[in-house]
Amino acid sequence: MKKHDQDFMKRQNRLTVFEIIKNQQPISRASIAKQTGMSPTTVSRIVGELTEQGYLLDSDQVSSGLGRKSTLIAMVDASVLSVGVELDRSLMNVGIVDLQGKLLCSRQYPRIPDESVDKTLERINEAIEQLTQQHLIDRTRIVGIGVGLPGIVNNEEGIVVFSVQLGWKNVALAKRLKELTGFEIAVDNELKVRALAEHLKGAAVGSVRTALLGFGQGVGSAMILEGEIYRGVMNSAGEIGHTTVDPNGMMCECGKAGCLQTYINISSLLSEANRIRPIRTIEELFEAKDAGEHWAVHLIERALMYMAITINNVVCMYNPDSVILSGELVDKFPDIYEEVEKLYLSRFTWEPLRGSFSIHRSMLNENGVIIGSGLLSQNRFFALD
Amino acid sequence: MKKHDQDFMKRQNRLTVFEIIKNQQPISRASIAKQTGMSPTTVSRIVGELTEQGYLLDSDQVSSGLGRKSTLIAMVDASVLSVGVELDRSLMNVGIVDLQGKLLCSRQYPRIPDESVDKTLERINEAIEQLTQQHLIDRTRIVGIGVGLPGIVNNEEGIVVFSVQLGWKNVALAKRLKELTGFEIAVDNELKVRALAEHLKGAAVGSVRTALLGFGQGVGSAMILEGEIYRGVMNSAGEIGHTTVDPNGMMCECGKAGCLQTYINISSLLSEANRIRPIRTIEELFEAKDAGEHWAVHLIERALMYMAITINNVVCMYNPDSVILSGELVDKFPDIYEEVEKLYLSRFTWEPLRGSFSIHRSMLNENGVIIGSGLLSQNRFFALD
Repeated sequence: MKKHDQDFMKRQNRLTVFEIIKNQQPISRASIAKQTGMSPTTVSRIVGELTEQGYLLDSDQVSSGLGRKSTLIAMVDASVLSVGVELDRSLMNVGIVDLQGKLLCSRQYPRIPDESVDKTLERINEAIEQLTQQHLIDRTRIVGIGVGLPGIVNNEEGIVVFSVQLGWKNVALAKRLKELTGFEIAVDNELKVRALAEHLKGAAVGSVRTALLGFGQGVGSAMILEGEIYRGVMNSAGEIGHTTVDPNGMMCECGKAGCLQTYINISSLLSEANRIRPIRTIEELFEAKDAGEHWAVHLIERALMYMAITINNVVCMYNPDSVILSGELVDKFPDIYEEVEKLYLSRFTWEPLRGSFSIHRSMLNENGVIIGSGLLSQNRFFALD
Repeated sequence: MKKHDQDFMKRQNRLTVFEIIKNQQPISRASIAKQTGMSPTTVSRIVGELTEQGYLLDSDQVSSGLGRKSTLIAMVDASVLSVGVELDRSLMNVGIVDLQGKLLCSRQYPRIPDESVDKTLERINEAIEQLTQQHLIDRTRIVGIGVGLPGIVNNEEGIVVFSVQLGWKNVALAKRLKELTGFEIAVDNELKVRALAEHLKGAAVGSVRTALLGFGQGVGSAMILEGEIYRGVMNSAGEIGHTTVDPNGMMCECGKAGCLQTYINISSLLSEANRIRPIRTIEELFEAKDAGEHWAVHLIERALMYMAITINNVVCMYNPDSVILSGELVDKFPDIYEEVEKLYLSRFTWEPLRGSFSIHRSMLNENGVIIGSGLLSQNRFFALD
């Protein structure tokens, strides 16, 4: 517990003004003063400083309504940029994000599943070089790099504790990528940054308690509470895929039986399908279902039912106001969203909580992780500033 | 977003000093100044004000170590008192709690299950009269009443939205009890206040993310995050009892099939037992198990297994550092704690999170709800002050 002194007060007030302009621009100085209770002089001083530093400019709009017209202030969106990186088993996605979470440019690269850490880091560095050169990005405006990946991440120290998908264990990613690129690095779990992106710029703008569910190679969730990622003690909160639903159920890759994800995730669906006949991809499985093969209909309907159960269980535990569905399964087969909602959701939702949440499809889709990683990196920059 | 002005700063600093003394007493002015970064003059001014108001006194201890000896400051624990009330189907428990969460006096009363709201309120009022008179409590020091009960509670407005156990629906408890007693009223769900009590004064002191589980007439959980109760949008977070674990499972009183609590809670265990032979109480069921009746062994072992599953599922979702087991089942049959831990816990805990949390038995037991309700009421008082 520290004192609230003059310095602290000044920093806080500066951040408050900055955030208001970022979220409500274009805006008048008078409106900022009114919202914050600060004096017009204080607001003008802070706006002056921020303009000098290149963050703000006078827009070409003036205030409407009665009284003396005044020029509205706007953000220079490109005054703060960051790099967002998504890493997955066989994919690397790199983009550059501005202050408003807009993706200025991005590019997907394939990744060799057993690529070494050094090689991956080098390729991230090269991709940033390439993107900044091709799109004439001012590198001096880049405040850092954010990396989102599947697995357990020590976000404070930037260490990848364990990632089955990348085959990494205890990799000091932030340290090594900073040495290579010179930028500040933020690392986090992919679902957590994806939730942050949807909360700030996607399907859950305005939501106070957002739960994002990911249905893909695994099943997981992430929670944003009053603007903050809910992390837990090891940054592992939200691992709903490994909640046990049937102690006599199928074996999960984690070594337990009957984890929720064994009814839903792609590898598990494929291994069940292969009990019937050779099926190599999830697309083939959905084709079999569309062709009316009973076993495939049964398998996929069971998965949809367990998706509704996942929604209920997340809603019972976190009591969110918004639930967002995301991940490879939902992206590839958009009908899933309607079918879960129409056929299963109300049956499996606990009655007192029906109607307490809205349900959304991801809006940022395949860009969610790079946008979220980029915004995370900016948040880190402003918090440290 | 409001400005941080002089007034706000003063209030914050006053609260900071108060909290430090409350948690670390007896303590020297110099140590407070060092911890907060405030000047000795500011600390002395604040301590002076609080002493004048009767909250602090000079203790008879002096600082140890080198340098000039100075008198240590202590709290007057009885300077702030509150009433804690627990309501349940057939029980009413009333106590008076001091600033340190110490129970000065308390008394249990039976409650008629279909007692009217008015009658219950009257009886609370009478109980407070009785306790304060018998124990010579200074009523002017009582800052409010906290009430904890099972069900969905709108804690901001003090409304009992729905309680199966009390048979109440949309009862404006805070308003009506304030009219009757004149005190400020805080109302909350019993597990939430119980978790607060264990966090502040019980089994989870020092924990940053505490999950409390309740196994009794229902199954539920509550989470304390950095000192705050995690509520969700309807103050309904933690309803793990109604997460679905088996879509083909037993009917739950909520109207869904296969809710987690159907394997654990008392009424469900009794209804299962009665498929075999007449069993009226949970004690009879445990006697049958102790006598080696196979069906009873099977039924109770299944319940213990699902308790371990509950722990895993809570740990996966919230990633807490501490888990506390509480509730009628654990209170009445203390062996449950060891058996769950020895026989089932490691098998059902997701491997990456093994060892990430400690597990405790409730320390406050049957007093948890009145202590937590009392402390909640004090927190409300200090926040409003």
